[in-house]
Amino acid sequence: MPRSLHGQVAALDSELPRERDFWKPYRDLVVRTALPYQWEVLNDRVPGVEPSHAIRNFRIAAGLEHGEFHGYVFQDSDVAKWLETVGYCLMRQRDPVLEARADEVIGLVAKAQQPDGYLNTYYTVKEPGRRWTNLHEGHELYCAGHFIEAGVAYHEATGKGALLQVATGYADLISRTFGPGPGKLRGYCGHPEIELALVKLSEATGERRYLELALWFVDERGREPYYFDLEYERRGRTRLMPEFRGFDRSYLQAHVPVREQRTAEGHAVRVTYLYSAVADLARLAADAGLAAAAVRVWDNATRRRMYVTGGIGSAAVGEAFTSDYDLPTDTMYAETCASVGMAFWAQRMLKLDADARYADVMELELYNGALSGMSLDGSRYFYVNPLESVPERTARNPGLRHVKPARQPWYACACCPSNLTRLIASLDRYIGSALGGAAHVHLYVSGTIELPTEAGPFRLEQSTAYPYEGTVRIAVRNAPTAETPLRLRIPGWCADWRCNVNGAPWAGSPRKGYLEIRRQWSARDQVELVLDMPVRLLRSHPRIRSTAGKVCISRGPLIYCLEEADNGPLLHELRVSEPTEWSTRWEPGLLGGTMVIRGAATRVDESSWDEPALYSTASTASVPARILAVPYALWANRGEGEMLVWISSGA
Amino acid sequence: MPRSLHGQVAALDSELPRERDFWKPYRDLVVRTALPYQWEVLNDRVPGVEPSHAIRNFRIAAGLEHGEFHGYVFQDSDVAKWLETVGYCLMRQRDPVLEARADEVIGLVAKAQQPDGYLNTYYTVKEPGRRWTNLHEGHELYCAGHFIEAGVAYHEATGKGALLQVATGYADLISRTFGPGPGKLRGYCGHPEIELALVKLSEATGERRYLELALWFVDERGREPYYFDLEYERRGRTRLMPEFRGFDRSYLQAHVPVREQRTAEGHAVRVTYLYSAVADLARLAADAGLAAAAVRVWDNATRRRMYVTGGIGSAAVGEAFTSDYDLPTDTMYAETCASVGMAFWAQRMLKLDADARYADVMELELYNGALSGMSLDGSRYFYVNPLESVPERTARNPGLRHVKPARQPWYACACCPSNLTRLIASLDRYIGSALGGAAHVHLYVSGTIELPTEAGPFRLEQSTAYPYEGTVRIAVRNAPTAETPLRLRIPGWCADWRCNVNGAPWAGSPRKGYLEIRRQWSARDQVELVLDMPVRLLRSHPRIRSTAGKVCISRGPLIYCLEEADNGPLLHELRVSEPTEWSTRWEPGLLGGTMVIRGAATRVDESSWDEPALYSTASTASVPARILAVPYALWANRGEGEMLVWISSGA
Repeated sequence: MPRSLHGQVAALDSELPRERDFWKPYRDLVVRTALPYQWEVLNDRVPGVEPSHAIRNFRIAAGLEHGEFHGYVFQDSDVAKWLETVGYCLMRQRDPVLEARADEVIGLVAKAQQPDGYLNTYYTVKEPGRRWTNLHEGHELYCAGHFIEAGVAYHEATGKGALLQVATGYADLISRTFGPGPGKLRGYCGHPEIELALVKLSEATGERRYLELALWFVDERGREPYYFDLEYERRGRTRLMPEFRGFDRSYLQAHVPVREQRTAEGHAVRVTYLYSAVADLARLAADAGLAAAAVRVWDNATRRRMYVTGGIGSAAVGEAFTSDYDLPTDTMYAETCASVGMAFWAQRMLKLDADARYADVMELELYNGALSGMSLDGSRYFYVNPLESVPERTARNPGLRHVKPARQPWYACACCPSNLTRLIASLDRYIGSALGGAAHVHLYVSGTIELPTEAGPFRLEQSTAYPYEGTVRIAVRNAPTAETPLRLRIPGWCADWRCNVNGAPWAGSPRKGYLEIRRQWSARDQVELVLDMPVRLLRSHPRIRSTAGKVCISRGPLIYCLEEADNGPLLHELRVSEPTEWSTRWEPGLLGGTMVIRGAATRVDESSWDEPALYSTASTASVPARILAVPYALWANRGEGEMLVWISSGA
Repeated sequence: MPRSLHGQVAALDSELPRERDFWKPYRDLVVRTALPYQWEVLNDRVPGVEPSHAIRNFRIAAGLEHGEFHGYVFQDSDVAKWLETVGYCLMRQRDPVLEARADEVIGLVAKAQQPDGYLNTYYTVKEPGRRWTNLHEGHELYCAGHFIEAGVAYHEATGKGALLQVATGYADLISRTFGPGPGKLRGYCGHPEIELALVKLSEATGERRYLELALWFVDERGREPYYFDLEYERRGRTRLMPEFRGFDRSYLQAHVPVREQRTAEGHAVRVTYLYSAVADLARLAADAGLAAAAVRVWDNATRRRMYVTGGIGSAAVGEAFTSDYDLPTDTMYAETCASVGMAFWAQRMLKLDADARYADVMELELYNGALSGMSLDGSRYFYVNPLESVPERTARNPGLRHVKPARQPWYACACCPSNLTRLIASLDRYIGSALGGAAHVHLYVSGTIELPTEAGPFRLEQSTAYPYEGTVRIAVRNAPTAETPLRLRIPGWCADWRCNVNGAPWAGSPRKGYLEIRRQWSARDQVELVLDMPVRLLRSHPRIRSTAGKVCISRGPLIYCLEEADNGPLLHELRVSEPTEWSTRWEPGLLGGTMVIRGAATRVDESSWDEPALYSTASTASVPARILAVPYALWANRGEGEMLVWISSGA
C-alpha cells in the first residue's frame, strides 16, 4: 500500500543555515528564561500571576516562616520538577549560580522533611495527622515521586547526594508504610508517578526493593475491594476536590487491574505516567503480562485516540480519553503534560521493544503536541493545545472556555510548564540508546551522544538541520571495541531515503523502522543519512468524524497549521484541492526562523452567498487563494488570531 | 437570485392518504396521553421518574398536608403550564372529566394563594418572609406569569373565572409591589415571562395598567444601578443556584437596556420570552423603539444564531446563545423550550408586521425544533435537540453528557414537556390571524379557523396533507360582509406555486411572502393553493464552521435526518453527490406514517484505509450507497442509534 501521495517539493528558495540546530534555542531558553521565570513564579514575584506559594509552603513547613499552606495539594511537585529540570541543565553545562540556588532550595526541602522521612507541605502544614488518609486525591505519593526523580537527576548531574538522600529517606518511609505485609496500607496513589520514580530510584541505587514496591503499586491498582472506597469511609467521607465526585474508577485507571486493561481510559496524563512505569517494569522484571498490557494500551491510545499533533485527551472534563475515534478538534483537551507524558512512555516502550513506531510517536510529541506548550520567548504556556482556535468562539462559548487563544503567564494548576521544560532539558536521553546489543539513533538532533554498548562507549556526533532538512551527518567520535550494529531510525513519515557510510552507499532494508549498519567502527567513520522530506497531506481515519474530508499539512515530523497572521481570518473558508504544488521556504525572520509551506487553495467568495439567508439551496462560488502554513508548535506567537490544523479539502 | 437548486422529485410511489391531518395525532396525543402522563408525574406516581412534588407543594402550601417543599424554585410553573394546556384542549373539545380534574387543581391553587394575593409554594413553604428578595434566581414573577397565562386560557376555554381571579389577584399584588412609585421595588424577574403574561392579562381584562406594568418591567431591565447586585447585597449575599455565579448580565438579557440590545444574548429561552413581550408591547403601545429592538434581535437570532432545525442555544453552559455563526452540531443545546419560545415570539412578530419571514420561522419550529421534543407516543421528551447523535460519543464524552440519545421520561427541571404540549394544544392560534385589515393564513393545517376581520368573522376550512403534500384546499364557510383581502403565505422554501379561486387561476405576486386575494367572499368560495414541494438540499452560511461542505435534506417545512435504523451506523461516512435523483415515498407503516426521502450517496470503503494508521497520506475509496432520510422531528423513536442532519457532500 502506498504510504505517500504527496505533491512535488520545490527547491528551497532561501538557503536554510547549514546544520542549524533546532533544539539549541529551546535548550538555551530553558536555562536562560524558563527556569529563572519559573523561579520567580514559585517565589510569588511575578506581577499579575496568581501567587504559587510553593516555596513559601516549604519555608512554613521547615519552620522558617509562619503562615498557612496555599495552592493545590500537589503544589510541592512544582518545586521538585524545577529542581529536576535544573539537574538536566547542569548535566549539559555546569552553572555555579544556578547550582547554588538549587542547593539552597534542596536545603530548604531537607529542612521541611520530617524526622521519619515524610515530606509534604500540605499534610505537614494544613492537615497534620492526616497523612495517607486520602491517597485518592491527596497526591502524596505523586509528590514523592517527583522528589525522587529530582533527587536522581540532581545527583547524576552534580554528584551531590543531598536531594537523593531526602528522596531515599522518603522512599524508605513509603516502603515501610505500603505493601502486602501486616500493618501496612494496601493503597496506591490516585495519580500515578511514584511507580516510575521508584524504578528510577532502583536503577540509581541498585536497590531492587524499590522496583518491587513499584510493581506492587501497579498490581494493587484496580483490585477489589476498591481501596479508595475503603479509605473514603475510614476518613469520614471527606473530600479535598469536589470535582472528583463525578469521576469513576477509570478516571484514575483503577477500573480493572492493570494487567486486564485494554484501552486508554480516564485522565490522559495519569495513563502516560502509569504506563511509563508499566513498560519499565515489564522490561526490568521480564513480566510478559505487563508488557502485553503496555502494548495493548499503547496501541489503543496511538491508533484510536490520539490527535495528529500527538495530543491526547478528547474531553476537557476529566482531561480524559473518551472513546475510539472520538477526536473533536475544538472542545478537546490535549494537555501539554499529556504529550510530555506520551514522550516519557514512548521512550520506555522503545526500551521494551526497539520498534521505531514508538520513536515516531516520541518524535511527534516533541515537535508538536508538547513543544506547542511554550511560547518562543519561554515565558508563556499552553495547558490545552487545540487543533483549531477561533478567539471569538473560545471567548464566548463556555464549552470552549478551557481553550485559550494565547499562551498564559502561568496556571494555578501549574503542572505543564515545568513538565515541558524538564522534557526539553533532558532531550539527550531521548536521542539514542543502546538496546539489545545495538546502538540506536532515534532522533536526529545536532550534538554528541554517547551510547554504552557492550563493547564500550559509542560516541556519535550528529550535524543536521533536521527537522527542516532531511540530511543527517553522523561522525563517529569514539567506537566500540567490537563489531557493533548501529541502527538508524527511518521515520514512519519517510518513504524515500538513502544512506552512505564513509561516502559509499549502504544498502539495506529497515527492520522495525531501523536501518542497521553492522561493522567494526572506527573513530573517523562518517555516516550520512538523507531522508526525503516532501510536504505530505495527511488524512484521518474514516471513523474520525471531526476531520472527515479534511487534510493536514505536514513535512517530516512537523505538523503544520494555518494562522490568521498569514492567511487572514475565516480559515475554515479555505479549501485545498489536490494535487497541489507545494513550495517550502526558509524564512529567517519569521517566528525565530522557520520553514514555511506555501500552496494553492481556494477561498469561499462570501459575496456569492444568498444573504441574508442562514441556510439556502444556493451554492457559493470560490476564488483562488494562496495559503501559508507554519509549524503547529509555533502558533500563537504573533498575537491572537485564528489557527487551523485540519483544512477543508476537495475538488 | 435563484432560491432553488434542487433535484428532480419522482412521482409518489405509494399514495399518501388524501388530506391526512398531520397535527390531529399530535393534538389527540396531548389530550389522551401527554396530559394524563404529566398529571401522573406531577403527582409523583410514575415509577422510575424522579418525583416532581409539584402538586404536593401546593397541598402543603394550602395547609392540606404537612411536609417540606421539594423541587426547583420554579416547580409551580409545571402545574400552571399543565392547566394552561388543559385550557387549550378544552377550547377544541370540552371534556368533563379533564375539566373536573382541572377545577380541582384550580381549587387547590386558590387555597395556596395567600390573603394578599401572593402565590408561590417555595416562598410560602420553604422561605416565608423572603418574598421578592431574590428576583435574580427566585422565579416568583416567572411563576406568576405562568398562572396568568393559565388563568386567561382556562377562562377563555370554559368561561370559568376562578383561576383568572387567582391570577388577577396576584397581578394586582405585583402591581402594588413593583413599579416607579415611592416604596415600590424597582426590580424585574431574572427569567422573563411576567411581561408577556401581563400583556395577555391586559388583553383579557381590558385593563391597560397591566400592559403598562409589563412595559415598565421591560424598560427596567438592564438599567443602572443593576438591580440584581443591589438585592444581592440586601439579602446578605446568599444564592439559590450556585451556577448563577458564573453567568454575567447578558445571561438574563440585562447587559444593556432592552431598547439598546442588538444581538440575541444569554439564555435562549429567556430571549424568546422577553422579546415575545417586547413585540407585543411595541404593537400595543405603538412604540417604535421597542419594535426596532425586536426586529434587530430577531434578525440576529434567526440569521446568525439559529440551527437549520430552528434550534437555538449553541452552548450547554447557560443554555445560551454564543456568537454569530457559532453553531456546533454536537455540543449545542437547542432546547425544546427555546424552539417553543421562538414560535411564541414569531407569532407576535407577525402581529407587529405581517411578513412571512416570521411565519417561516414559526413553521420551522413547529415541524422541527419544537416537535422533536416529544416521542411519538407522547410520554418521552427531549430537553436538548442535537443535530447529530452518536450514542457512544454522548455516553463517553462528558462534554456531550447533556445530549441524550433517547427521549427521557421526565426531567428534574421539567420546563420542556409542558411547554411543547401547550404549544401543540394551542396550535389553532398560530394558523391564521386578522392583521391590518386582511385575513392571513400563516400555516396550512387541516381544520377550521375563524378570523375576526373588520367586516365580520371569516371562517375558513382547510383540507390538506401538508406538510407531506403541497396542495391546500380552503373552503370559505363564513364570509365577511365587505370585500376583504385573504392573504395566503407562500413559504420561503417554495419557489413554484399556483393558486385557483373557484377553479380559475389567480395571478399575483406575493408581497412580504403573502399572496393576496381581495374580493367579496361568499360562503361557497373555494381556494386551492398548490405549493411545489421538491426535495431541497440546504447548505449553511459560509461563516458556519461546523457544517461547511455539508448538506441538509429538506422538503417543504420539514428538515430531514439520517438514522442508523435505516442507514446503518457511521453516518458520517456517507456522502451525497450532486445532482442526485431523490425519490419520496409515503411509508404508512413507518413512524406512524411518514414521507421518506431516498437518494444515491457514496459510503467510505473502510477496507481501503491504511490500517492501522490513524493518519495517513493514503486516500480511501468509496462505494455506492443508498440513503433514506426521515423527518427530523421523528428521530429516536426506534431505539438508540446514530442520527445525522448535516451530511457530507462533494463530488
